[in-house]
Amino acid sequence: MSDDKQYQFIGTRSIRPDGFDKVTGRANYGADLSLPGMLHGKILRSPHAHARILSVDLSEALALDGVLAAVSAKDLPDQRAGADDAGEGQVDYEDLSNNILARHKVLYHGHAVAAVAAISESIALQALSKIKVDYQPLTPVINLMLAQRENSPLLHESMITQGIVSDDAKPSNIAKQAVISRGDIDKGFAEADIILERTYTAPAAHQGYIEPHACVVNHSLGNHSAGEQVDVWCSSQGHFMVRAYTAKILGLDVSEVKVTPAEIGGGFGGKTTVYLEPVAALLSRQAGRPVKMVMTREEVFRATGPGSESRVKVKIGVTKAGQFTAMDAEIDMNAGAFKGSPIMPAMMCIFTPYTCANMKVRGQDVVTNTPKAAAYRAPGAPQAHLAAECVINELALELAMDPIDLRLQNAVEEGCRTIYGPKFQAIGLKQVLEQAKQHPHYSAALTANQGRGVAAGFWFNIGLQSSATIHVSESGKVVVLTGNPDIGGSRASMALMAAETLGIPLSQIKPIVADTESVGYNDLTGGSRTTFATGWAVINAAKNLITDLKKRASKLWEVELDQVDWVDGQAVAPAALDKQPLSLSDLAAKAGFTGGPLTATASLNAKGAGPAFSVNIIDVEVDVETGKADVLRVTALQDVGKAIHPSYVEGQMQGGAVQGIGWALNEEYIFNDDGVLQNPGFLDYRIPLASDLPMIDTVIVEVANPAHPFGVRGVGEAPICAPMAAVTTAVNQAIGVDSGYRLTELPLNPPKILAAIDSE
Amino acid sequence: MSDDKQYQFIGTRSIRPDGFDKVTGRANYGADLSLPGMLHGKILRSPHAHARILSVDLSEALALDGVLAAVSAKDLPDQRAGADDAGEGQVDYEDLSNNILARHKVLYHGHAVAAVAAISESIALQALSKIKVDYQPLTPVINLMLAQRENSPLLHESMITQGIVSDDAKPSNIAKQAVISRGDIDKGFAEADIILERTYTAPAAHQGYIEPHACVVNHSLGNHSAGEQVDVWCSSQGHFMVRAYTAKILGLDVSEVKVTPAEIGGGFGGKTTVYLEPVAALLSRQAGRPVKMVMTREEVFRATGPGSESRVKVKIGVTKAGQFTAMDAEIDMNAGAFKGSPIMPAMMCIFTPYTCANMKVRGQDVVTNTPKAAAYRAPGAPQAHLAAECVINELALELAMDPIDLRLQNAVEEGCRTIYGPKFQAIGLKQVLEQAKQHPHYSAALTANQGRGVAAGFWFNIGLQSSATIHVSESGKVVVLTGNPDIGGSRASMALMAAETLGIPLSQIKPIVADTESVGYNDLTGGSRTTFATGWAVINAAKNLITDLKKRASKLWEVELDQVDWVDGQAVAPAALDKQPLSLSDLAAKAGFTGGPLTATASLNAKGAGPAFSVNIIDVEVDVETGKADVLRVTALQDVGKAIHPSYVEGQMQGGAVQGIGWALNEEYIFNDDGVLQNPGFLDYRIPLASDLPMIDTVIVEVANPAHPFGVRGVGEAPICAPMAAVTTAVNQAIGVDSGYRLTELPLNPPKILAAIDSE
Repeated sequence: MSDDKQYQFIGTRSIRPDGFDKVTGRANYGADLSLPGMLHGKILRSPHAHARILSVDLSEALALDGVLAAVSAKDLPDQRAGADDAGEGQVDYEDLSNNILARHKVLYHGHAVAAVAAISESIALQALSKIKVDYQPLTPVINLMLAQRENSPLLHESMITQGIVSDDAKPSNIAKQAVISRGDIDKGFAEADIILERTYTAPAAHQGYIEPHACVVNHSLGNHSAGEQVDVWCSSQGHFMVRAYTAKILGLDVSEVKVTPAEIGGGFGGKTTVYLEPVAALLSRQAGRPVKMVMTREEVFRATGPGSESRVKVKIGVTKAGQFTAMDAEIDMNAGAFKGSPIMPAMMCIFTPYTCANMKVRGQDVVTNTPKAAAYRAPGAPQAHLAAECVINELALELAMDPIDLRLQNAVEEGCRTIYGPKFQAIGLKQVLEQAKQHPHYSAALTANQGRGVAAGFWFNIGLQSSATIHVSESGKVVVLTGNPDIGGSRASMALMAAETLGIPLSQIKPIVADTESVGYNDLTGGSRTTFATGWAVINAAKNLITDLKKRASKLWEVELDQVDWVDGQAVAPAALDKQPLSLSDLAAKAGFTGGPLTATASLNAKGAGPAFSVNIIDVEVDVETGKADVLRVTALQDVGKAIHPSYVEGQMQGGAVQGIGWALNEEYIFNDDGVLQNPGFLDYRIPLASDLPMIDTVIVEVANPAHPFGVRGVGEAPICAPMAAVTTAVNQAIGVDSGYRLTELPLNPPKILAAIDSE
Repeated sequence: MSDDKQYQFIGTRSIRPDGFDKVTGRANYGADLSLPGMLHGKILRSPHAHARILSVDLSEALALDGVLAAVSAKDLPDQRAGADDAGEGQVDYEDLSNNILARHKVLYHGHAVAAVAAISESIALQALSKIKVDYQPLTPVINLMLAQRENSPLLHESMITQGIVSDDAKPSNIAKQAVISRGDIDKGFAEADIILERTYTAPAAHQGYIEPHACVVNHSLGNHSAGEQVDVWCSSQGHFMVRAYTAKILGLDVSEVKVTPAEIGGGFGGKTTVYLEPVAALLSRQAGRPVKMVMTREEVFRATGPGSESRVKVKIGVTKAGQFTAMDAEIDMNAGAFKGSPIMPAMMCIFTPYTCANMKVRGQDVVTNTPKAAAYRAPGAPQAHLAAECVINELALELAMDPIDLRLQNAVEEGCRTIYGPKFQAIGLKQVLEQAKQHPHYSAALTANQGRGVAAGFWFNIGLQSSATIHVSESGKVVVLTGNPDIGGSRASMALMAAETLGIPLSQIKPIVADTESVGYNDLTGGSRTTFATGWAVINAAKNLITDLKKRASKLWEVELDQVDWVDGQAVAPAALDKQPLSLSDLAAKAGFTGGPLTATASLNAKGAGPAFSVNIIDVEVDVETGKADVLRVTALQDVGKAIHPSYVEGQMQGGAVQGIGWALNEEYIFNDDGVLQNPGFLDYRIPLASDLPMIDTVIVEVANPAHPFGVRGVGEAPICAPMAAVTTAVNQAIGVDSGYRLTELPLNPPKILAAIDSE
């Protein structure tokens, strides 16, 4: 399905500008820079999941030959003046600082306590062993259930639950409670013919990015008249974010930090914060030399943020005719050591595909002695949809209705209001559901021990701030500068949108991911915002350039500006004026005569991010001997608004499906009772490989986002929203559902499936 | 003397933004970058000053272990389709290519013939010795006189003199002839009471920059969808120039080359072209690895361009009352191996301080078997003024007039037309002359063997194309991006102009010299254009930012745009509206609510460059035993329009005086009869040291350039225009002028002075 507009470049599958360098190994990632005199930094990590730090003695480490710097939290400014009551999406810099270097307590096994920089990595490691830390061990709290027990040890002794205020509030491990609702939930359940309640859990899961966190930082006393100068080279999902966080943690102004983006080897939400950069800056400041820091894979697992462990109770009421009357959910999410799990987006997403008049969603943000959770692709939504969509599928069984029909009957459409506020403009859920129903996959036969799950997913997508600058070379080539790391092919999509707007060939456009000083501010790459918002900035910068190009042509032709039009990459005048069209190259060559070099810039705070709906159909077969579930067939469908580069949209859909399948079947953080992660590596923490999965079919549905010039919706996160529920449904169906869905605790690994089969 | 306008920041002596890094050795120059896997490139240079290349065999060099690439001119595209009839200021790419790597002939001793890249410099040097070049030696032509002899060997066998056309044109070493004139020169001389004719010569002279030419180049098959990708890091006077020349020489589009500017350790015109960059790119392309090339000092002397050797005959007629009636000049300049000495600027400058109605200036551009001349600070003007100003001083003697009075009587002022076309707007020559006359130095007593010279100098200055971009951080700090290397403190002057325009403190501004992809096109730093033209772009970008800031304030206040003014760095509204002023930081913090990040850009082709006049008063004392002339006192006076940063203006005036003094007394390229430079190093080519000279007094005169928002004139080149004539006059006066000025051949070194004394 495609919208009506005909485009010249948009929608083509152009070669990615960064492709050659990436496949030939020339692309430079976070660890690939070396500077003269560079030192190697390493971090000392806590052996305890929960302990008080009584003292840190760096002196012996500093005395070691070849060690030039050693730091602990004392070297960082105290952030207690920070936003302690930071709202949703805001950063609590005291927590961030304490996560980067623990100040009073260590809150998880692997928590950073101190760091050294030395002339070699081996000396740095040796120096770590010379650091003396005196700990007072405390009992760790390692999961959602333990954290909420009466008399559970407290991570933050004075933390009072935000949100629902109670009169006798006392400190707890529940950082926040929130409720959003509409209608009358009790009335809704009273109207229901069938009510089903289930609780689904999912473990903490790693985002699966291949490149470990890495940076090179060079600190100087300032190459400008005010302040210090911290030059950072690193892999991240947003170098302006790295700049802001690093500056804040160091007590500097953002202008004192420059961040140059390395290529990024995957992030998926996991690189939306900083771990190493401020520490490397401290070490560089102390040593007076550049410092490189690269995490081992084990450090990545032990000390950076996974997607949150979740426990989601869903209760849905439905009439015999298949009308939802009440939808109720209780969502608990594990934030790890510091507050801030994605309960809000989970609450926003869980029931939003549906029109039900009576809804209530409660959420709790819970802290535990595990690494501080980070964003993971559509943070919170997959875990939420897991529960809701499985319950809907089970209800469809009870109603003897087709699960897609049940969804279609209750699906939202343009004009429906969301539980969290805004009304939908044009959206494509019904179209996606209809495409799914018509898809040959949906009607293909299944055999014994096979099951098929279908599920819908929702992600609201965001806009936020973006900037783009265009410089035209004297030969008429167009450099397009943006400030978001190229994670999913954004260089290609920026080039396509610039080409479409300017009407010039792609070969005339060079998209650049610029450093924090060479382009205006850009919010980080997250919330599926980059193609939408940064692309829009590119479109606007291109339009500003066209305005200028028309002026230049009017000068050269000596005609009124309103006589000049810009058509197919050329300035044209009415035929009566008898003017040869002027191409961008013509105008660039003559720019010196018409006002100087051609440059243009644009920025915006993009409104109107188009929500995305996805549907997954997934078939599995369960080996009843071993309990292993194999994925047989996957079809991912999604309303993408407009696919700027269809291959990369399909890649997003396929990648999200794979990640959801992995989380459903294999992936989990396994902590022992001491809070020590037992599987900190990709051998023991197993993500699906190509050999584990079939080719994933994709169906792109294009219901243009009316707010965006090219109809773009974010496409990166919706793909992971549905597969966990689809797989879980398929596995439950494969093992027989006579007594309902028995498997509700992810991952659905062989022991659990075997146990469920045996319990039959 | 200062103009009326009161500025808050302009005219203050702020700390230079790049100062700390430069004095602590942290600033990175052309040779300071190292990349992983980087090779070292070296160039094989001709042992002959003139020879035909019969063959170049690279095979043995390539066979050497550790050698990864070897190239000769055959690896460069043939540029014969280039601008063979390139006009003034245009580049002949065939010549440029042949200078970079000799194709058919070597034209000077040290001319590049081939190059290698190897894993170490020592292996590269060893490889050079394995390259077999078969030469057919030819007789070299090593100076202006030899080149113009009947039957002189021809450097370019088919080169016909451009300019004055003769019917029987035959090839010669005279590349170009030109004449500019006004009035009737014969009539003028007929009206004269006194006529004096003298010929002054000056040798080729080195610009004296300390940093040798150096670059690091990384070639890739393209990180974008079209073409190759050549990343260049180098020290130059214009990275957009390096981009354009490197691309052209390699047969690429400019968009395929990115140049990142290193800091520059001096240029003075000597870094306005390329020598190494295209060769390093060829080597990198062949080797598939980055290549660093750094010239030795000897290579810099033997194979890069000095200021031109000159021979200038001047004939001036004057009435007894001191009125110039005729001014005639013949200027020959040595272009070195390829056409293009600065005869045109020499012709433009020589008599331009004076109003004489009858003028004629002839010029000849002559090629010789010496390194291709390059620009050297006010190219051509010091050599031209040397002759004209010395003749005027000698005329003053004959007239028994004060030489400043003689000049004042004939000095140009606003409304006078130049010999080359334009009329002067406000200029400051008379003011500068009057300041000189009033200066205590001018009336200070002299003793035996001392002499005092006074001379005026003129440089027209240029505008050309510049771009600037401004990005405002979320904290309200302002990054100002420009694209000219910071040679004489331009980061400071850009920051001062931005601060003045925006009304915000300097500490809020971070001036950046951006690479060729991060800012719009900028012509190179030359012609004293940067503070004038690039500064103007900064001013315009700041004004564009203010326009946007006012819009943002009007949105926040919900008032009409025309109600908002920008005063002292704040948006203000009429008192009646009762609005608290909004600072740039306030508006930056709220930019997300008013349209997104704050960015602005501007570019221009700057018209109205203000001409600069300088006067030098220089006292010398001659040791009659040794013939050595010591400089006793120097006062440099100049109309600078408006001194944006007075310390750097004074530095320019002092530096220009030092260079002129060096050229007058010590400096020269000494070639033997085979065309081999005998003094290729700073021990034998002696530039004046601090211990050789007194502190140089400066007098800044400020007659605002009416074309520029802050009245700026270029200040960098005028300072070298007068000292050669002032020193030469002083030395002649010191040794006695009863028989006229005997010393007319520079440098005035002890043997020449002793010979002149002995001839008395």
